[in-house]
Amino acid sequence: MIKIRNIAIIGATGLVGQNFIKALEEKNIKFDNISFFTSKKSAGKKIELKNKAYITEELTEQSLTKDFNYAFFFAGGDISKKYVPIAAKLGIIAIDNSSVFRMDEAIPLIVPEVNIEKAANHKNIIANPNCTTIQAVVALKPLHDKFNLKRVIISTYQAVSGAGIEAVRDIENGTANALKYKIQKNLFPEVGEFLENGYTDEEIKIINETRKILDFKNLNITATCVRVPVLNGHSESINIEFENEFKIEEIITTLENAKGIKLQTTPQPANINGKDDVLIGRIRRDESVKNGINIFVVADNLRKGAATNALQIFEKL
Amino acid sequence: MIKIRNIAIIGATGLVGQNFIKALEEKNIKFDNISFFTSKKSAGKKIELKNKAYITEELTEQSLTKDFNYAFFFAGGDISKKYVPIAAKLGIIAIDNSSVFRMDEAIPLIVPEVNIEKAANHKNIIANPNCTTIQAVVALKPLHDKFNLKRVIISTYQAVSGAGIEAVRDIENGTANALKYKIQKNLFPEVGEFLENGYTDEEIKIINETRKILDFKNLNITATCVRVPVLNGHSESINIEFENEFKIEEIITTLENAKGIKLQTTPQPANINGKDDVLIGRIRRDESVKNGINIFVVADNLRKGAATNALQIFEKL
Repeated sequence: MIKIRNIAIIGATGLVGQNFIKALEEKNIKFDNISFFTSKKSAGKKIELKNKAYITEELTEQSLTKDFNYAFFFAGGDISKKYVPIAAKLGIIAIDNSSVFRMDEAIPLIVPEVNIEKAANHKNIIANPNCTTIQAVVALKPLHDKFNLKRVIISTYQAVSGAGIEAVRDIENGTANALKYKIQKNLFPEVGEFLENGYTDEEIKIINETRKILDFKNLNITATCVRVPVLNGHSESINIEFENEFKIEEIITTLENAKGIKLQTTPQPANINGKDDVLIGRIRRDESVKNGINIFVVADNLRKGAATNALQIFEKL
Repeated sequence: MIKIRNIAIIGATGLVGQNFIKALEEKNIKFDNISFFTSKKSAGKKIELKNKAYITEELTEQSLTKDFNYAFFFAGGDISKKYVPIAAKLGIIAIDNSSVFRMDEAIPLIVPEVNIEKAANHKNIIANPNCTTIQAVVALKPLHDKFNLKRVIISTYQAVSGAGIEAVRDIENGTANALKYKIQKNLFPEVGEFLENGYTDEEIKIINETRKILDFKNLNITATCVRVPVLNGHSESINIEFENEFKIEEIITTLENAKGIKLQTTPQPANINGKDDVLIGRIRRDESVKNGINIFVVADNLRKGAATNALQIFEKL
């Protein structure tokens, strides 16, 4: 049986959508038909893919039909909330980049290197994790398998591209239109909305999503999320405490041999822009605790942190 | 007895030197005579202070005479290594911003809010701590006094001004002349030189200096230092574990009432540029450990992190 692949891309003109289209081209992904949907404002724009031109269409309740068998949602929470269930009901497999369905126990939350086996249980909806979570779990999973995580402390350095096209304009122009504060040559420890417990929802996403993806409900983990004036590429300073003893060389070998990881002495966003690996460096023993290490983890938040992870899920299905 | 205050400023045209002169003016610090010394290259430049013009002179072995009773060293390690002992021998009190003498057990390492009482033991040399250390200990000391530190994990977000005037040009022009990597819209987890254990000397400075200033030799503390494309103002994401139990309100009240600290919801470098307080925010319980908190600490690395701390030591002497 030859399987037909008719794909709908929702949010085709946003930063993640654009990176998804670029990755489709680069990886020469096979499909039969493809349609691009946007808001009313962005409808009618031309998109080039594999030497063919497409015109974006406004997403309406009539857009999604049984002709599609895959739909990628890159248009934010409100659109996903409304249209993902419509797609799923029509029998379309929806791969959703929003946070709406991630913590739903019935819906798999997938990072292919970590838990692709869970994707098989989907009921037509698969959630793509938050960008900050994806690069963290790619680093944590191989180490957890060997040395057993005891506690994880993450401080993020998040690029403006994670806040969308308007935020990219803010860093270019020194404005604060999309972002709450001026980011040009400044930074601020506030990503997302504040919750009652003093954390932001971005921080709680890392905590909850990491626990779900690693299938480790009681993992001791905390996070501080910071927006920095980097154009693209998120970084994370991660302190890890293990249950097991280790030699630092074993940590290095484990990461070196893990899928999706490249080791660098001084990983940095400029080195990963447009690429799909997770860079890890600064691997060293933390002498302040029994079995501790510090590492520094960098990934392209639009690619591995969003578009490419969704595409990798699709490829594995 | 009226005490004469004849002051020598060494490194008067560097970023820290300039900030020191600005602070002398703003705080209307009293002195009798003042001289400004620089490298041969920067000699002959005009400096204005309190409506008086001065000309910078090249620092030579003949520059320092018994006429001075205070000398401030802001010209880097090589100059301090050579001239601080000369000054001390002449009976001049040298307040040194380099790292050369900081870990010398006989030499006090002072942050006025934390351990000014140790300054009295000086033998004509007082060391000014590293910028990253100063803002950390201002935050840690009042908390340690009440709740007893158990473990401290610091991730820094260090501005380019900390690497000097040429590094500031690097961020403005997109170059990598003074800095090892391009910093414009990028970042890198490498501040200072790598040591054999995988840490940079900047990271070891935070660890060792914090232990010395807090008089807590076995403090469990680790650090990851990162250069970010912020113009001025260092930030630190600090995770703290205490021996004692606490209510989060007690942490907030303790910091609120501590010297040199201002609380803000979202502290950021743009809010502290040119000011002397240490901003602290994002104070919240870390649920991943028994008695833990996360905080975010911001200070002007050229002012409280260097120039103003030296001036505050002088004022207290």
